[in-house]
Amino acid sequence: MPTDLDCLFQARSAAVVGATPNPDKLGHAILANILAGGFTGRVYPVNPKEDRILGLPAYPTVSSIPGDLDLVVVVVPAALVAGILREAAGKGARAGIVISGGFRESGRLDLEDELKAVVRQTGLRIVGPNCQGINYRPNHLCASWPLVTANGPMAVISQSGTVAATLAGWAVDEGFGITATVSLGNQVDVCETDLVEYFAGDPATRTIALYLEGARDGRRFVRAVRQTLPHKPIVVLKSGVTAGGQRAAASHTRSLAGRDEVFDGVCRQVGLIRAPNLEALYDYAKGSAALAHGVGPRVAVITSSGGSGILAVDEAERCGLSVPVFSPQVTAALREAHLPPNAILANPLDLTVCLAQDFERAVDVLVGCEAADYYLLIFGDPIPGATGMVQRLRERIGSRAAVSYLGGGEVEKEERLRLHAAGIPVFPTPERAIGGIRAAYLAGRGNKL
Amino acid sequence: MPTDLDCLFQARSAAVVGATPNPDKLGHAILANILAGGFTGRVYPVNPKEDRILGLPAYPTVSSIPGDLDLVVVVVPAALVAGILREAAGKGARAGIVISGGFRESGRLDLEDELKAVVRQTGLRIVGPNCQGINYRPNHLCASWPLVTANGPMAVISQSGTVAATLAGWAVDEGFGITATVSLGNQVDVCETDLVEYFAGDPATRTIALYLEGARDGRRFVRAVRQTLPHKPIVVLKSGVTAGGQRAAASHTRSLAGRDEVFDGVCRQVGLIRAPNLEALYDYAKGSAALAHGVGPRVAVITSSGGSGILAVDEAERCGLSVPVFSPQVTAALREAHLPPNAILANPLDLTVCLAQDFERAVDVLVGCEAADYYLLIFGDPIPGATGMVQRLRERIGSRAAVSYLGGGEVEKEERLRLHAAGIPVFPTPERAIGGIRAAYLAGRGNKL
Repeated sequence: MPTDLDCLFQARSAAVVGATPNPDKLGHAILANILAGGFTGRVYPVNPKEDRILGLPAYPTVSSIPGDLDLVVVVVPAALVAGILREAAGKGARAGIVISGGFRESGRLDLEDELKAVVRQTGLRIVGPNCQGINYRPNHLCASWPLVTANGPMAVISQSGTVAATLAGWAVDEGFGITATVSLGNQVDVCETDLVEYFAGDPATRTIALYLEGARDGRRFVRAVRQTLPHKPIVVLKSGVTAGGQRAAASHTRSLAGRDEVFDGVCRQVGLIRAPNLEALYDYAKGSAALAHGVGPRVAVITSSGGSGILAVDEAERCGLSVPVFSPQVTAALREAHLPPNAILANPLDLTVCLAQDFERAVDVLVGCEAADYYLLIFGDPIPGATGMVQRLRERIGSRAAVSYLGGGEVEKEERLRLHAAGIPVFPTPERAIGGIRAAYLAGRGNKL
Repeated sequence: MPTDLDCLFQARSAAVVGATPNPDKLGHAILANILAGGFTGRVYPVNPKEDRILGLPAYPTVSSIPGDLDLVVVVVPAALVAGILREAAGKGARAGIVISGGFRESGRLDLEDELKAVVRQTGLRIVGPNCQGINYRPNHLCASWPLVTANGPMAVISQSGTVAATLAGWAVDEGFGITATVSLGNQVDVCETDLVEYFAGDPATRTIALYLEGARDGRRFVRAVRQTLPHKPIVVLKSGVTAGGQRAAASHTRSLAGRDEVFDGVCRQVGLIRAPNLEALYDYAKGSAALAHGVGPRVAVITSSGGSGILAVDEAERCGLSVPVFSPQVTAALREAHLPPNAILANPLDLTVCLAQDFERAVDVLVGCEAADYYLLIFGDPIPGATGMVQRLRERIGSRAAVSYLGGGEVEKEERLRLHAAGIPVFPTPERAIGGIRAAYLAGRGNKL
């Protein structure tokens, strides 16, 4: 049932139980972020000791809230949580987010069993406990921290709140943005598979980034992934690869990581794109969200930095893409294109000292000759006018151009924001750009490189 | 002769030939950066068409400069360069930097031979041509672009100007800083080996980061590296690893990359720490500059983010370090340390929701038990007071603590600057932190992991 989490993501009213005026507490941060994030539904702070919090009337209990309640966010000691959730369900709430820790991860299986009983008996859908909440931009609902309001195409589902916050933080800094982050916590109810199903059907989400320590129900997870991948790429970082990592994962979320070769085999079989580390998870999500899928393995590298071009070639060849030698026809056409006199007319095409229009002319020729499937533009110096140029190229060639911008100081930072606003992915190094291109290529081929 | 490049780095006067008031030109940027970089020697713009440039009197020729001249920086068309260098040598200059391109890389071997003749006949030491200049902070001499004035422990020697600028840009953004960047260009004279020898003897430089496409004289390079490594780590990113990369390197700097297995073997044999990509070059340089060398392979991971801790363990075990299980004695001591109630007292030590002092108490216990050789502190949320805490730890345990700070928003950015100012290395992900620690470990063991 892909839509049964609408009660969570599309909530029109939310209570924060444990809201407080103390700015050092999570109960404050979450209420503040719901308000600052632009949520347009009703918001009810619940705290028996306060009259008003952050300018809103506070209520002593969930039951005393006037009017309807869709979602309850709980930030109180573990022993009190089940009672509050029951009260919320009694009031008609259909979803709960439990931020509070102190359950299974602290040996309190009994308290966790109580939450499971609430789910069974009331039908309330619960995220957590022991989690960092959710942020869903289409509903302007940031029931999490830090505050993130940059809209983009990436949904992050994570067994680690910090991993979700880190990806979101990068997406904010770069102007790439998110549709959602969900921190899974102990998963008494809502699990990674429910969320894959939900974001598969979410029109704002173009790619799903998953951080997993283990899957609760492997078969169901694989089934959901198989159904999603024809429509939407999924990128996964799975930890617990080594013996020590598996031991640590077992302590963290009591996940049974399983043998890594098994998970890796599943990824290859079903077409999950596996990231080797945290930055790659972000890069692959970015590339697969922004670039056309499965076009082909041939990359043309056009660069103002010879050294950076070589790094791109090395990485491409290492990861199964190719940077093919141009045919004599292509080279002849490049010779007619009025490129800078010292340009090296090969692949990588090294423009040396150049302007934005030199990149444009070069790519024009290559596109005309169908010389490549993807285009990597490397700016190795400030390139004024980069955004306009790449946008024009994109109109002509579709989403087949990625940018690596480096060594560009403040101009680089500004152009990166503009390029991301225009939907063009920018990477901090040539190697990471190749990773993003590879993910887009794999996304269209069921990961069968 | 390690000191014979003092004429370049310790110059007390510099002419910029091709200086111009046009802010779009390199001849402007370099003059402006020498001035803005705080150079205290005399500076002479040379341009026959101008009276004053950037507030300084301009001279029509090098010969017309009043007084002594140590260094000449040349940014004029290639055909004019040799004549200007001879004129500068005639005036007593002992070093030249040729920014101009249009030599060997454009097929003009004849012009390059002229420069070699100048070196032979006058003894002038030349950097370039076709390069991005040098920046040497101890002499406040930024004869390069972009302007970088952040002082730190890392000297960058690079066959790519962009690679040098990129590393310097990161070092500025993070407050880590540099001692020097040198862009080698076509190397008619000064080569990577000369510079390794120079920075080996430079007291401000604690680590050398090299980007190479090939070495001009392999034997001499290996000899210089062998002499340097007992005193100072060298980290190298060598491109041209794949067949396509070797082809591209041959086009870029006419370097003969050679078989990669040979270079890799040399690295292992002599103890050069090889980086697999551009970010790793930076991370390894940072780790080996800031952390104690060769302490041992055991890493204790202390974290507020369980997931991030697992990623660190996976990476450590993949790269030959260990995150050992703590002994019952250590666990018992941790139990007495008044850590947060939900903390998981293992390695990684997951403090969950915690304060700076919890990290301090935990590391105190571990140090007391000699439970590890290096300490990785992962902050998975804003941790107010992080810098003061890590500084106190450092006083107690020496330079054995690295930090990975992620998901911390603005607090993270501020604390990162403070931590780097205090000499404590900070990495953006757990995996990259492990890379930095590994580099410091290898630096003390001759790379024999």
